[in-house]
Amino acid sequence: MSNEVTMEKIVALAKGRGFVYPGSEIYGGLANTWDYGPLGVEFKNNIKKAWWKKFVQENKYNVGLDAAILMNPRTWEASGHVGGFSDPLIDCKNCHSRFRADKLIEDHMMANGQEQPVIDGWPNEKMEAYIREHKVQCPDCGKSDFTNIRQFNLMFKTFQGVTEDSKSQIYLRPETAQGIFVNFKNVARTSRKKIPFGICQIGKSFRNEITPGNFTFRTREFEQMECEFFCKPGTDLEWFAYWKDYCENFLKSLNMNMENVRLRDHEKEELSHYSNATTDIEYRFPFGWGELWGIADRTDFDLSRHSEYSGEQLTFTEGEGKDRETYIPYCIEPSLGADRVALAFLIDAYEEETVTDAKGKEDTRVIMHFHPALAPYKAAVLPLAKKLADQAEPIYEELSRYFNVDYDVTGSIGKRYRREDEIGTPYCICVDFDTETDRCVTIRDRDTMEQIRIPIEDVKGYIEERLQF
Amino acid sequence: MSNEVTMEKIVALAKGRGFVYPGSEIYGGLANTWDYGPLGVEFKNNIKKAWWKKFVQENKYNVGLDAAILMNPRTWEASGHVGGFSDPLIDCKNCHSRFRADKLIEDHMMANGQEQPVIDGWPNEKMEAYIREHKVQCPDCGKSDFTNIRQFNLMFKTFQGVTEDSKSQIYLRPETAQGIFVNFKNVARTSRKKIPFGICQIGKSFRNEITPGNFTFRTREFEQMECEFFCKPGTDLEWFAYWKDYCENFLKSLNMNMENVRLRDHEKEELSHYSNATTDIEYRFPFGWGELWGIADRTDFDLSRHSEYSGEQLTFTEGEGKDRETYIPYCIEPSLGADRVALAFLIDAYEEETVTDAKGKEDTRVIMHFHPALAPYKAAVLPLAKKLADQAEPIYEELSRYFNVDYDVTGSIGKRYRREDEIGTPYCICVDFDTETDRCVTIRDRDTMEQIRIPIEDVKGYIEERLQF
Repeated sequence: MSNEVTMEKIVALAKGRGFVYPGSEIYGGLANTWDYGPLGVEFKNNIKKAWWKKFVQENKYNVGLDAAILMNPRTWEASGHVGGFSDPLIDCKNCHSRFRADKLIEDHMMANGQEQPVIDGWPNEKMEAYIREHKVQCPDCGKSDFTNIRQFNLMFKTFQGVTEDSKSQIYLRPETAQGIFVNFKNVARTSRKKIPFGICQIGKSFRNEITPGNFTFRTREFEQMECEFFCKPGTDLEWFAYWKDYCENFLKSLNMNMENVRLRDHEKEELSHYSNATTDIEYRFPFGWGELWGIADRTDFDLSRHSEYSGEQLTFTEGEGKDRETYIPYCIEPSLGADRVALAFLIDAYEEETVTDAKGKEDTRVIMHFHPALAPYKAAVLPLAKKLADQAEPIYEELSRYFNVDYDVTGSIGKRYRREDEIGTPYCICVDFDTETDRCVTIRDRDTMEQIRIPIEDVKGYIEERLQF
Repeated sequence: MSNEVTMEKIVALAKGRGFVYPGSEIYGGLANTWDYGPLGVEFKNNIKKAWWKKFVQENKYNVGLDAAILMNPRTWEASGHVGGFSDPLIDCKNCHSRFRADKLIEDHMMANGQEQPVIDGWPNEKMEAYIREHKVQCPDCGKSDFTNIRQFNLMFKTFQGVTEDSKSQIYLRPETAQGIFVNFKNVARTSRKKIPFGICQIGKSFRNEITPGNFTFRTREFEQMECEFFCKPGTDLEWFAYWKDYCENFLKSLNMNMENVRLRDHEKEELSHYSNATTDIEYRFPFGWGELWGIADRTDFDLSRHSEYSGEQLTFTEGEGKDRETYIPYCIEPSLGADRVALAFLIDAYEEETVTDAKGKEDTRVIMHFHPALAPYKAAVLPLAKKLADQAEPIYEELSRYFNVDYDVTGSIGKRYRREDEIGTPYCICVDFDTETDRCVTIRDRDTMEQIRIPIEDVKGYIEERLQF
């Protein structure tokens, strides 16, 4: 067995240990939906909490927000999603299979040796021409005879109220960002923040993707952690650099292996027409490099559009007397996918270690090297024997008041250590036959397997100290 | 001005201080949607964290889950939502206004002196007959000439994939509970839990309500905190009592005034056909008693239905040899609305106090008496003068690593205290001209207005101790 991390191993561990299950599994699933199990919900919540801590709680510029998923549909006209948020679809005339034209071209380019093809922003005509000229084949039947491209809007539609007509048609938000822009004035007024300041939000978004896939990397329902940071025009590139560093430091502070991370600056031709600069922070997934974070300098595009469509002037006024000036702030957007970064941390933590037991037998130890702040359980209380439950339970109960703790009495202590290693519990607290007399426990470290003996009353402090990041 | 708490006062404070704004406000809103502002998102997150702490982290029976909003539509056939989750609608033949028949009757009964009419479960014929016999009038035009009732399904529909036909039709979940039931086996297997155990989930649900209203009390998009607790048939009424107490204690532990809370046991005729017992925990809102928690003994209804519809036997096996038995567990469901309980805590915390200043002038002090664990800011760092920023900022930065802290230098110290009182900040930390020499600050208590002076290094511990519940 190779020690390489593969998606198969990650998906199997995730399902087997309760991180991620296929959604609606007893009914055969639903496309690429996934449910976070008991360990997965703790893990993902820890990531969301860590982001909130760094981006809201500790950052003196930022405040939080939680806007509704259902918004007035005018929002999506202003944002450009009604007009432009679509995928280029193409049908094979021979077998009637349907594909995303850009993916078809990308796959064709990669099959022909191009490493990281970038075809973002190609107009339909250019894609149609490419497919014709290079005789791109249908992946299903092998023929090269396609229809023209038609644009398919990616927003999920629904109807609110008792009638189903265009007047009652609304959308599931395709991004959390617009909930921030429409509240720009409300937040500025009530938080009494001055430019520069940012608004952060965590929440579900929905995109009717044609080709979801790669486990939780691309799903139709997903969770975003977005920050919209408003600054004075002209200072935007400085702040863009600030946030690029800030995001990178976030990953570092949680022990992500930076060899698996790269920052990819968008080329000028790849930039949206309104953007001054964009950088993607990408992670090296087993299936290739994939975007975690998009950090974009969006200039005044969003607030200008909403000013135009709503009639509300989304401006900021500063200075006194002669120096008084009113402007539409520029916006830096660091936008992170919660499910994607969770997947990256899951993969990044995985290790198979070959260990030799006392009898010289080789064995494989699977360890999830989560930062303690991200680990689903911070500690496991393990009485060496069942009859030590009287000693162990009060320790479990006391620690549970402060953080998430596992309790396990079944199987040999070695087996229990392995189980905890595999779910990334950083500290195992072993209660043994001396505990009653010396009021001490043994703490075993997940990564080094080293053990130290400390008084029961020091355990909480010992662990809390190591949760800091 | 009366000191009574009214919805107008709560809505005004919520909007003015950044707890809750109308959704999509710059576009004229969207029905009854609401966005949580910088203080609201902290407040609601604190409530969700408190629930998770008591129901998952500290409760040895329970584990968490986070299932997708979009589920295989067979789920909703099994649960009964496709067939039965509907409101009885009726149209006025004269003015064509549309109403919920049950609400029409309820309002009519209350207008005629009946205090808490219960018409849950009335068949359409009974409602139609009542309306005819009592000549119930149309609230809009005053006539009494109605159509027959037709049932309107409350699930939001949408389409997944590139076609919009019945095969691609899916629903936004109307409750989080079903995500738990379909994962019963996955969770039991991976968590190695034995009966009795529970699965807890927090998440958004959607109901296309005909008459949303009363601020955040009834909205089409809302957040639930649900627990499905599985136990052996025959032990269900014991566990039902356990969870009733547990839920009540949760509210008490967060200082809710229990005079505003009542437990209402459902009468036999009010019970769903599958339920052995149901109790609502209700809060006395300014608009009347309203349900916070529904606690129901649902017997084996849900797991049986899903076993039948999916073909998977959602059973549990226990015991060895002759004592071995396999059964479908019974289920106790304490289901709480996160937005509702947040609204209840908001109302419950509100007080207007008449205070007299040094010059004998009377003034009104608005205080939000939040439990410190629920308060958006745990503390505010207030330098007495701007030039004390050098002393105050490091204190703010250090405390911000552990909890959410405000920082305010504008206006007189008295004004700043009032602002913090109104948003429920329990502790104000005043940095004054002695701080540099004595390394102490003054901590002012929100509720008693008492002040004590303590060393800077004790502040974190002082506050953390008071966050416990």
